[in-house]
Amino acid sequence: MSNSVLSSLDALKIELPSWGFADTGTRFGKFFQAASAIDTADKFADAGMVNKITGCCPTVAVHVLWDFQKGQDPKEVAAAAEKHGLKIGSINPNLFQDQLYKTGSFGSADPAARSAAVQHGVECTELGKVVESNTITYWFADGTNYPGQDDIRARKRRFEACLKSCYEALSPSQKMLVEYKPFEPAFYQTDIADWGMSYVMCKKLGPQAKVLVDTGHHYQSQNIEQIVAWLLDEEMLGGFHFNDRRYADDDLTLGSIDPYQIFRIFSEIHGYAAETGEYPEIDYMIDQSHNLKPKIEAMIQTVTTAQELWLKAALVDREALHKAQISGNIVDAEAVLKKAFNTDVTAMLAEWRESKGVAADPLAAYRESGYAEEIEADRTRRRKEAGITQESSYA
Amino acid sequence: MSNSVLSSLDALKIELPSWGFADTGTRFGKFFQAASAIDTADKFADAGMVNKITGCCPTVAVHVLWDFQKGQDPKEVAAAAEKHGLKIGSINPNLFQDQLYKTGSFGSADPAARSAAVQHGVECTELGKVVESNTITYWFADGTNYPGQDDIRARKRRFEACLKSCYEALSPSQKMLVEYKPFEPAFYQTDIADWGMSYVMCKKLGPQAKVLVDTGHHYQSQNIEQIVAWLLDEEMLGGFHFNDRRYADDDLTLGSIDPYQIFRIFSEIHGYAAETGEYPEIDYMIDQSHNLKPKIEAMIQTVTTAQELWLKAALVDREALHKAQISGNIVDAEAVLKKAFNTDVTAMLAEWRESKGVAADPLAAYRESGYAEEIEADRTRRRKEAGITQESSYA
Amino acid sequence: MSNSVLSSLDALKIELPSWGFADTGTRFGKFFQAASAIDTADKFADAGMVNKITGCCPTVAVHVLWDFQKGQDPKEVAAAAEKHGLKIGSINPNLFQDQLYKTGSFGSADPAARSAAVQHGVECTELGKVVESNTITYWFADGTNYPGQDDIRARKRRFEACLKSCYEALSPSQKMLVEYKPFEPAFYQTDIADWGMSYVMCKKLGPQAKVLVDTGHHYQSQNIEQIVAWLLDEEMLGGFHFNDRRYADDDLTLGSIDPYQIFRIFSEIHGYAAETGEYPEIDYMIDQSHNLKPKIEAMIQTVTTAQELWLKAALVDREALHKAQISGNIVDAEAVLKKAFNTDVTAMLAEWRESKGVAADPLAAYRESGYAEEIEADRTRRRKEAGITQESSYA
Amino acid sequence: MSNSVLSSLDALKIELPSWGFADTGTRFGKFFQAASAIDTADKFADAGMVNKITGCCPTVAVHVLWDFQKGQDPKEVAAAAEKHGLKIGSINPNLFQDQLYKTGSFGSADPAARSAAVQHGVECTELGKVVESNTITYWFADGTNYPGQDDIRARKRRFEACLKSCYEALSPSQKMLVEYKPFEPAFYQTDIADWGMSYVMCKKLGPQAKVLVDTGHHYQSQNIEQIVAWLLDEEMLGGFHFNDRRYADDDLTLGSIDPYQIFRIFSEIHGYAAETGEYPEIDYMIDQSHNLKPKIEAMIQTVTTAQELWLKAALVDREALHKAQISGNIVDAEAVLKKAFNTDVTAMLAEWRESKGVAADPLAAYRESGYAEEIEADRTRRRKEAGITQESSYA
Repeated sequence: MSNSVLSSLDALKIELPSWGFADTGTRFGKFFQAASAIDTADKFADAGMVNKITGCCPTVAVHVLWDFQKGQDPKEVAAAAEKHGLKIGSINPNLFQDQLYKTGSFGSADPAARSAAVQHGVECTELGKVVESNTITYWFADGTNYPGQDDIRARKRRFEACLKSCYEALSPSQKMLVEYKPFEPAFYQTDIADWGMSYVMCKKLGPQAKVLVDTGHHYQSQNIEQIVAWLLDEEMLGGFHFNDRRYADDDLTLGSIDPYQIFRIFSEIHGYAAETGEYPEIDYMIDQSHNLKPKIEAMIQTVTTAQELWLKAALVDREALHKAQISGNIVDAEAVLKKAFNTDVTAMLAEWRESKGVAADPLAAYRESGYAEEIEADRTRRRKEAGITQESSYA
Repeated sequence: MSNSVLSSLDALKIELPSWGFADTGTRFGKFFQAASAIDTADKFADAGMVNKITGCCPTVAVHVLWDFQKGQDPKEVAAAAEKHGLKIGSINPNLFQDQLYKTGSFGSADPAARSAAVQHGVECTELGKVVESNTITYWFADGTNYPGQDDIRARKRRFEACLKSCYEALSPSQKMLVEYKPFEPAFYQTDIADWGMSYVMCKKLGPQAKVLVDTGHHYQSQNIEQIVAWLLDEEMLGGFHFNDRRYADDDLTLGSIDPYQIFRIFSEIHGYAAETGEYPEIDYMIDQSHNLKPKIEAMIQTVTTAQELWLKAALVDREALHKAQISGNIVDAEAVLKKAFNTDVTAMLAEWRESKGVAADPLAAYRESGYAEEIEADRTRRRKEAGITQESSYA
Repeated sequence: MSNSVLSSLDALKIELPSWGFADTGTRFGKFFQAASAIDTADKFADAGMVNKITGCCPTVAVHVLWDFQKGQDPKEVAAAAEKHGLKIGSINPNLFQDQLYKTGSFGSADPAARSAAVQHGVECTELGKVVESNTITYWFADGTNYPGQDDIRARKRRFEACLKSCYEALSPSQKMLVEYKPFEPAFYQTDIADWGMSYVMCKKLGPQAKVLVDTGHHYQSQNIEQIVAWLLDEEMLGGFHFNDRRYADDDLTLGSIDPYQIFRIFSEIHGYAAETGEYPEIDYMIDQSHNLKPKIEAMIQTVTTAQELWLKAALVDREALHKAQISGNIVDAEAVLKKAFNTDVTAMLAEWRESKGVAADPLAAYRESGYAEEIEADRTRRRKEAGITQESSYA
Repeated sequence: MSNSVLSSLDALKIELPSWGFADTGTRFGKFFQAASAIDTADKFADAGMVNKITGCCPTVAVHVLWDFQKGQDPKEVAAAAEKHGLKIGSINPNLFQDQLYKTGSFGSADPAARSAAVQHGVECTELGKVVESNTITYWFADGTNYPGQDDIRARKRRFEACLKSCYEALSPSQKMLVEYKPFEPAFYQTDIADWGMSYVMCKKLGPQAKVLVDTGHHYQSQNIEQIVAWLLDEEMLGGFHFNDRRYADDDLTLGSIDPYQIFRIFSEIHGYAAETGEYPEIDYMIDQSHNLKPKIEAMIQTVTTAQELWLKAALVDREALHKAQISGNIVDAEAVLKKAFNTDVTAMLAEWRESKGVAADPLAAYRESGYAEEIEADRTRRRKEAGITQESSYA
């Protein structure tokens, strides 16, 4: 094993989502956890714990509506994160929850909705400047539920105009990531439905707009590593949202359903780095909300799985691979990938962690830390004091 | 057009869901409607209005947790429905919302969850006896989110045992419908995932257990009409949940995405009736919750679309179809279906409606009735008085 | 009904595929037809018959390997088509059948394969100039069957280079259409897998390269009409391959599985025309090979179905639609589409056909013509004379 | 590692398909291999080589139409197999290739097709008795391409009757496996489309009829391990066809796309064995035809991959798994699976192979054997002598 394989782990900084530590659920209800975060301070504390335990999660993504209070100085929020050793990562506007967005935000036929949405996007950009975050991450719930509901081309043009307004608010060091998703919550048509639509939009905007790939946002059987390879080749890949899925957008822990696919995605990145001499500038962000797994454990599991698969992909013998590819030897080319994938990287990961001063087995270390028990007690008490119940509401 | 075609509409009684008149949403939030039902009385009033306007929706499905109060005499609920010209239709247990059901109900490894679930199932059955409802409709959110989470065969056996306990509580005139769904809210494995699993369970239970087909609960590209045909042939089809979908379980109005598919499903039923001389005993139930379309309008649209496609399917020239099929004439066989599907049945529907004393265009009649304005004013006032807001909650 | 609705049919010229009249099959075998075309002359005769009967199929797509003989003057082929009242339509290179293309054509790691492929592309372009065909239609079977088999980015770059060489051979009046397809015959990764990949390629090539949409080449549940709308808005839609499918690329007659979807696609085109004042320059081509339906009947069925759905889509009341869309009235907007879709257009089609001097019911007219019996007898005799058997070969 | 883990490999006997050694292709053409088998003797030689190299493939599946000559004594075929150390495994009828089967075999509306099909099924059964094969494997291409083409319920009943006739021909020691497949070559409806349909048929037939699971024959996202678990629990799982797929029925080498899924399937079998004390009686058969990978190498790759994933699945700590499952500890339960899956089993496999007297690395051993060069030279010469070309035929 070369040093470069191990040091490739240094290129994998993983951003944690503040919203991943609070109670969430499906449309059928929430299952509550006593240890779930009550407020932004809790979220930062939990994210800080994950970073402390894993040594590779120095930033936390924030969700503007949920993490910033009206009138609050954003620097206070940044300071709260720093208290737990974290910097503010990507800024996530919320363009889907207000009643105004009933028929969309940037795509809505209602000028008031579009105007409010653009204003929110610009505010998020300004907020990013204040907290020194360079990434504004746009996900749109926009779309229609029924054929005919709206004019698809008109919506596309509204998107172009609104995105342009937000793009123009960027400082030179900021970038805008445009996420795509084939469906949900829109049921008939989603405005930014696939990588091609995101690409078309970003190309029109300029060099500070890039495509965001959420690993769970694809059609069944779609080849995600090919999309990643194309975006890399076009210098249009801005970031990832990490998760896994079986059916729809299931927000499962990364690699829990199909680890080989994640390995192949990472292999494309290592291949790009091998060719260009450096890793591409990509934001690796987790986007997961767990309602069954303990939230902090699930985050640690995703982080360690990402490192494990990243390392396996770094082990791909690219020279042997290239030789087999050029000579049309399919069996050997595939075997190069499989050999790397089947390698047990436990010891290597332990070595890297030791060099960073973190425990070889982060999940075990977390469990031994007593943190879970501590926050469970504390938050249970605080909920009680504040009169917050965690019971199913029968709608 | 023969009389039998028109009178075939008499066989299509459509049950309305009480929960379809209240505010609902996706996991990303709810979009509220001023006219949405506040309580069960509102729901019955709305369902009664749909029945009055369409003339073919004499029953309303109830959801036990949401429509019956602890300690309340169920007959009061039945009386409330009768006030609006309705009878109580299928009884729908809720086995997914309580915190106890975190890892499932009938399939849970937790004996307390299973016990509570069976008790609820039996209570629903008893409640059905009181309100003279003969159909208990079981949908299970049960499943697992991750590989290994639970033992699939153990869950299957727990299901067998729990279903048996509920089955045994049935009176001779009651039946139990077992619904299947491939995914959601479980993400890795759903205990009753397809028609085969529902069939296996029902066969073990006995003749009062039948399969429930929700038109939105299938894999992409799965042939629903074939499943319907097989279940009919096996005398195992107990009922339908009507809706449409494009991607997942999208709860769209029936036939809004693929009307030809619904037509083909109905054609299987007419074919069965043509052969046996009578329509099968099937409960036709709507299961839709709309957060964008006005709820009552959406229900009327589904009912009239169902009638329209049912009538088109009744127009299939079965003799010509059979002749083409037997002689291997694919083009002509297909053309028989297409001809019926392409027939404009507006006038025929008007004729049938006239004979039933309802308006030829139910949606227009509803809009002219002033009902929407009336309930909007009334419920807005009542919400105000009760301090109920319809604003997005930022979680 | 306005005149413009009826005259919109004039904009729908449908190109027939020469290969659609010969025996074909699945990988499991062929089912032969006595009336199938033996040679290119037969194919042109059959296509000419379909055009004569329908009045809207003036061109025939040719497949270079199968319709042109080595050393033959291409003008002879054009003359053979003209004999049957047809012009040569799109030129279809074959870049998948030669043993040289085992690992691809433009994407192959083998320079000899790429070189031969480019040479064939250029030859097809030159051939197009000779026979006065302005459309060169590229479909690529290129891809890989296994992870690692080849370098995805390298394949992309090879494609860029090869496409460029072919593009440069175009005369100013020629255009190049680039088709996409998610899978088959490649099983793991297809080089031009979706509209985005085709778009990226065409954009790099220049204004004479456009995207070709085959209605059967999409992921399950993908919204084809949205892709069409986007491509129209980007002025990047060059043509269609008409067919239908349920599962994979099933090559079924257009609208046989989901007619409403085809209607919605056509509605996007009419909407574009309503806005710009003219129909876009699009090649409407059939790509179907039938092994069960009689080939000529299947073509007639597709042509008449296309006209029927095109006409229904032309009936969409765009003003009412726009009004409902702008006011967020989802129910009414959808109803505008449904009303047009449900209209019986039989009489309108008959009127248009009468005005063109063709029979009101083309399929019936074809059957009465005696053509089928004639070619069946003729071709059976010729096969016998030439010693051609139509029996299953047991491999 | 306990002995029982290693010895679990003894339970995994893998059957090779005779047809997997001959040239095959997709509907777009074949890519030929010089070393491909010309006749049944070649196929047995190749299968014998795979068995010699791997030590775990003692039987070869035969395809009646392709491996047995009219009038030939079947014992000659069995003797030819024995010459290479093999026994005849499953008998595979061919009910799809004859022109008579244009609209199906057991499901056809044509009594002559059904009669021929049943006769063939019975003949295959008798042939099985002669060659001492106990497994008759039924796969049906039956289905329809268009809505209306045939009566689905009528087809179902024809299937019941024909299957019964074949079932009755079984000797007490023979069993009949009924395979399901959602689509292809039928495009609209497949008669035995899913496990439920196969199950219903087998239940009616009796205890000698079991379901055959082909790992490539499922809907996108369908949970195959759950189907396996249910069939095991119902004692209805008769066998597997091993392969992998990404999109449709892609016939890829096992585990090449999603190895974790195959691991989970095997884990269900080990779990059943752990509970019952013995491995279920299942036929593990490869069904793959490769047109790009060298055929023998692909078979060895599938066999070794199967062993590797089987062994990993045997390493699952079932006690720890059960404990985590019962206590609702999702993270730990999943980790038990992941730990086993991530274990490097190379050394263990080498140990087992050594104990069986075969090489630790079968693929390397095969390559060193010189067999590939030998058959390539021999078969090239024989093809030349027989005037067999391996060139693309331009249809």
